Amino acid sequence: MTQAPDTRTLADVDEQELLDTVLPRFAASDDVLIGPGDDTALLRVRSGASLATTDTMVLGRDWLDEWSDGADVGHKLVVQNVADIAAMGGRCTGLLVTLVADEGTRLQWVADFTTGVAAAARDAGTVVVGGDLSSAPAGTRMVSITAFGELDHVEPVLRSGARPGDVLAVHGTLGRAAAGLLLLQRGTVETNTNLVQAQRRPSTAYEQGPAAARAGATAMLDISDGLLRDGGRIARASGVRLDIDPAALAGDIQALTAAVGAADAETCVLTGGEEHSLLATFPSGTLPSGWRVIGVVTAGSGITVGGQEHVRVGWDHFGSAKTD
Amino acid sequence: MTQAPDTRTLADVDEQELLDTVLPRFAASDDVLIGPGDDTALLRVRSGASLATTDTMVLGRDWLDEWSDGADVGHKLVVQNVADIAAMGGRCTGLLVTLVADEGTRLQWVADFTTGVAAAARDAGTVVVGGDLSSAPAGTRMVSITAFGELDHVEPVLRSGARPGDVLAVHGTLGRAAAGLLLLQRGTVETNTNLVQAQRRPSTAYEQGPAAARAGATAMLDISDGLLRDGGRIARASGVRLDIDPAALAGDIQALTAAVGAADAETCVLTGGEEHSLLATFPSGTLPSGWRVIGVVTAGSGITVGGQEHVRVGWDHFGSAKTD
Repeated sequence: MTQAPDTRTLADVDEQELLDTVLPRFAASDDVLIGPGDDTALLRVRSGASLATTDTMVLGRDWLDEWSDGADVGHKLVVQNVADIAAMGGRCTGLLVTLVADEGTRLQWVADFTTGVAAAARDAGTVVVGGDLSSAPAGTRMVSITAFGELDHVEPVLRSGARPGDVLAVHGTLGRAAAGLLLLQRGTVETNTNLVQAQRRPSTAYEQGPAAARAGATAMLDISDGLLRDGGRIARASGVRLDIDPAALAGDIQALTAAVGAADAETCVLTGGEEHSLLATFPSGTLPSGWRVIGVVTAGSGITVGGQEHVRVGWDHFGSAKTD
Repeated sequence: MTQAPDTRTLADVDEQELLDTVLPRFAASDDVLIGPGDDTALLRVRSGASLATTDTMVLGRDWLDEWSDGADVGHKLVVQNVADIAAMGGRCTGLLVTLVADEGTRLQWVADFTTGVAAAARDAGTVVVGGDLSSAPAGTRMVSITAFGELDHVEPVLRSGARPGDVLAVHGTLGRAAAGLLLLQRGTVETNTNLVQAQRRPSTAYEQGPAAARAGATAMLDISDGLLRDGGRIARASGVRLDIDPAALAGDIQALTAAVGAADAETCVLTGGEEHSLLATFPSGTLPSGWRVIGVVTAGSGITVGGQEHVRVGWDHFGSAKTD
């Protein structure tokens, strides 16, 4: 006998039942002095300062239920927030989680979302310390996280410290999440489930953020809106030019060509968002293990590929397509 | 010559123009080591621990544009978050602000909202340290704040510390925000603009949170869902009964009777939410200045009025009416 699926929606449960669905899935931590249930959380801060960032996902804009389940959404939301902590050189110490959902939302979706958040938090070495549950008009569902972090004996790595002579380096993949999105849009998911998984559940080597900071990274961020756009942010904040070496990306493009074709593979690698790999600049000769050089920092402004301005196809292209 | 009103919507501006509308309205602070613009904020934490709380408002559920302008929404959102910090005995040290809005949202609304947030933050002695701007499907608008705080040489005041023999006390008004909402619903706003203002722009004497903590408050929260419901939360968390003295509320009810009638006045005082006055329990004889006793803590469970269980008319009554 198999258990019947839970078909209840948020309209069928009261606030306490909803909390009973959510709270038992979250772990505890010695650094959480007061967790969920009171007016606020209280989080130990050992280093004298707290990193804080927030990021939101909206149904119909940042995900579609047809393509991502609740656990996928919870996973991605954690990654995109904790990646921001890592990109400062920090270690995540806690998460506040907000869910705004209309009462037609299935309770099972909330349970799956919570499970995804809890699992991704565990992967990131952190815990949920509190949050907010709120109802919404029909058709609205939105999830948001605020992530806290600390710097362990390193200075924060800003976007503004890149200097001519530095190298531009990446840790992790390029373009895979965008290629997975293309497969979902084309309805050819079966051609490469790994790429679709990269879209649904991106990953960041969080520990590489502090490692890069210790190695002397001069600027860093995670790739959320595409290599060209995010690299352009470092260039603008630092008052320098970034020049990407096309040869350094040949392997990334090649790896996607069978799945999406050569032209789209290049577009994904240069402009694909939601990858959450770390992008940083380092003084020449100081690259930490696992990072690879993809370009150089020079005097000037903007971002170029092989010395040429690239016809920018930004992440908005895919972003708007997702909701059309 | 008068200036033409700004009729642009979010569809007419790019992300940078939107940031240029928002960021100049926010003040700086010595305790904000890194403010808006990088991957995360970095906030000094002097006491070794950070309070953190988050609260969200959704168009059509928590406000209507016909009744509250952008500045009102920004103001109320700050108050309901900072009141949570105060209700732990804390002082607010920074805010992260999230705006999720469809592209039909007027840029002027965003400017007004930002102005309201900035002004209310200044009133609370705090600043905006960062946030998130996100687009949304048509008809969706949602704002959220995460507030940070510190405890200055006091222990956090939880909901769970009330003990038999303590007194129940309130600082500030009761039922005024709910009465203002009733006037808006009835379309009789002109009868009492002060009450409508209490609905649009509630206020909390934030400094009374730390003052209550120093005076030995045993439990505390702010009244966001009504005296009976929020008092019930203290009773449940502390394992005690709260008994409210009806005579202590006579003045609060009398003050609303002319505007909404005697029966609704009582309902507003006992069950009206969004008031954000502070409610706390104190050992007998330790009441700080400005607080007034409205009941006692006894052995038992639940909340009573004059020893009787009250027919609970919860905040949901008004809350759902708002969106009908």
